[in-house]
Amino acid sequence: MAREIREQPDVLRRLLATGAPRIQDVARQVAARTPRFVLLTARGTSDNAALYAKYLLEIQLGLPCGLASMSTTTAYGARPDLRDVLVITVSQSGGSPDLVASTKAAREAGAITLAVTNNPDSPLAAVSEHHIDIMAGPEKALPATKTYTASLLALYLFVEGLRGGDGSAAAVLPDHMTRLIDRQDEVRTLASRYRFAERMVITSRGYGYPTAKEAALKLMETSYIPALAYSGADLLHGPLAMVDNISPVIAVVTDGRGGEALQPVLDRLRGRGADLMVIGPQAQVDRASAGFVLATDGVAEEVQPVLEILPLQLLAYEVTIARGQDPDAPRALAKVTETR
Amino acid sequence: MAREIREQPDVLRRLLATGAPRIQDVARQVAARTPRFVLLTARGTSDNAALYAKYLLEIQLGLPCGLASMSTTTAYGARPDLRDVLVITVSQSGGSPDLVASTKAAREAGAITLAVTNNPDSPLAAVSEHHIDIMAGPEKALPATKTYTASLLALYLFVEGLRGGDGSAAAVLPDHMTRLIDRQDEVRTLASRYRFAERMVITSRGYGYPTAKEAALKLMETSYIPALAYSGADLLHGPLAMVDNISPVIAVVTDGRGGEALQPVLDRLRGRGADLMVIGPQAQVDRASAGFVLATDGVAEEVQPVLEILPLQLLAYEVTIARGQDPDAPRALAKVTETR
Repeated sequence: MAREIREQPDVLRRLLATGAPRIQDVARQVAARTPRFVLLTARGTSDNAALYAKYLLEIQLGLPCGLASMSTTTAYGARPDLRDVLVITVSQSGGSPDLVASTKAAREAGAITLAVTNNPDSPLAAVSEHHIDIMAGPEKALPATKTYTASLLALYLFVEGLRGGDGSAAAVLPDHMTRLIDRQDEVRTLASRYRFAERMVITSRGYGYPTAKEAALKLMETSYIPALAYSGADLLHGPLAMVDNISPVIAVVTDGRGGEALQPVLDRLRGRGADLMVIGPQAQVDRASAGFVLATDGVAEEVQPVLEILPLQLLAYEVTIARGQDPDAPRALAKVTETR
Repeated sequence: MAREIREQPDVLRRLLATGAPRIQDVARQVAARTPRFVLLTARGTSDNAALYAKYLLEIQLGLPCGLASMSTTTAYGARPDLRDVLVITVSQSGGSPDLVASTKAAREAGAITLAVTNNPDSPLAAVSEHHIDIMAGPEKALPATKTYTASLLALYLFVEGLRGGDGSAAAVLPDHMTRLIDRQDEVRTLASRYRFAERMVITSRGYGYPTAKEAALKLMETSYIPALAYSGADLLHGPLAMVDNISPVIAVVTDGRGGEALQPVLDRLRGRGADLMVIGPQAQVDRASAGFVLATDGVAEEVQPVLEILPLQLLAYEVTIARGQDPDAPRALAKVTETR
């Protein structure tokens, strides 16, 4: 897991240099079909990447999106009318039978289908009309790290292609990521905070929300700490009762409108004396119990999620080590999960 | 909370007797506009009711659906093209400013807007083109119970109206619910299992999945036990590592295709020796560590969620009492949550 975390700057560089033109091609072909709605299909880590794409598509393109409830097709045999609908299926392995079946069904129902995978020879790539290869190289560790950030970048470049943008905001990401990786010692210190935590709450808003969900999944998969992710607004509608002196809160504060929209939630958490760790700009970290400063100068808000997850991947790793467990051997998991 | 749980059979009876014809009217008007895509907007408990509607709309009507990410509109100012799109906003109070703002924006963007609330005089009902009153009467307890089941029933009747059905499958629900409420002692015995639980996992598939999410929210709001809800398929993609001997699992097993699709997950959990409590048919309960039998004879799968949540509402209540806390006074929550 540690090795694959460190590979990420190179993975991003490769995707930008070699993959981007092909992604532009796919985007051009899809744009020519003028989809009116987008359905995103994925599970686990890929589902969080799909959620990032949902924000991009809705904000950058004004395309209404939904995350597919796969069982409506695979268990109940629903055959929705999918003309003018773009169905994007995100899967690291491209091997899960339910994703293959639902993508096949979507294509038969008239959808424009796009698979985003780390394996161009996968069954999912084969049944899908279009395919984007995230080119992350083999991922051996069970907790997905490099395939997550590579999926984010691939989806960003795809949406940029759809809207006729050049994706240039992504160019700075690899160097920023290298600098983040060099700060692993800082994360190790932060990890000591959570060594004895019995639960955690992770919150964000807007573009940062997929990061909160992915961080929660990573923490659970590796350390088994029950980590609950809520959008800032949802946190105020119920789960806030759980926070006081019980659950430390990690807030992912993007530098932009998402972070601004999270402000009232941060104020409320501070007002209640919550233990609050911020991943975000210096000024936000200064007002929290602890934090990790993300230098976001020159990084557009919509690509910040590619960077934000890095300290949280490291945190999951370091917390797990601190608890005397092995992040490379989570119980019960197989790398390709075959759900039907 | 206990009183409002017990009011539910009467709430359902009133909605069936008095509300149903008006819901049919609204459905007819919406159907005449032939929506092609549905976006559902809600927070907290209402978000779980919205998820139930998503399953109904996709399975019964083949209408592709998405749950709205509200911040794309309220924080980022996205103005998607919503012609042919039905936007359903579910809110007990009808008072949260972000829901009002996003519904208003959706209407301006060409959407057919429908508000489902417990207050016909609310700002949300006012800005929405159509309104359905769930007629649950004032809800005083902070954890929503009767407004949840009333929202489910109202949404079921609406979808039935859209597809030209008569909604007759709902007629048996009030009497079934009365019989469930009479079994509170059984739930009290089950609650003792979780008195010392530090975390819980709740799983289901298909129509039962919104129940799993709502049960998790209810348990957290009242007892502060971190309860994590996963669809059965997602559980196998990561969080399963957390289950072994650490987290008890509650499975909501609907009697129908959702329950069948959950079978491999139940087998896997049993194979790993997980502490598994089942809410579902007798045969499923017999194979679990504990359970609560739902007699579903004559209850169509698509309306079972209205009943399934009842023992779980009672469980949240009883666990909270067993832990020496007060389910009527969760910390930090206000009944109308104003998020922007």
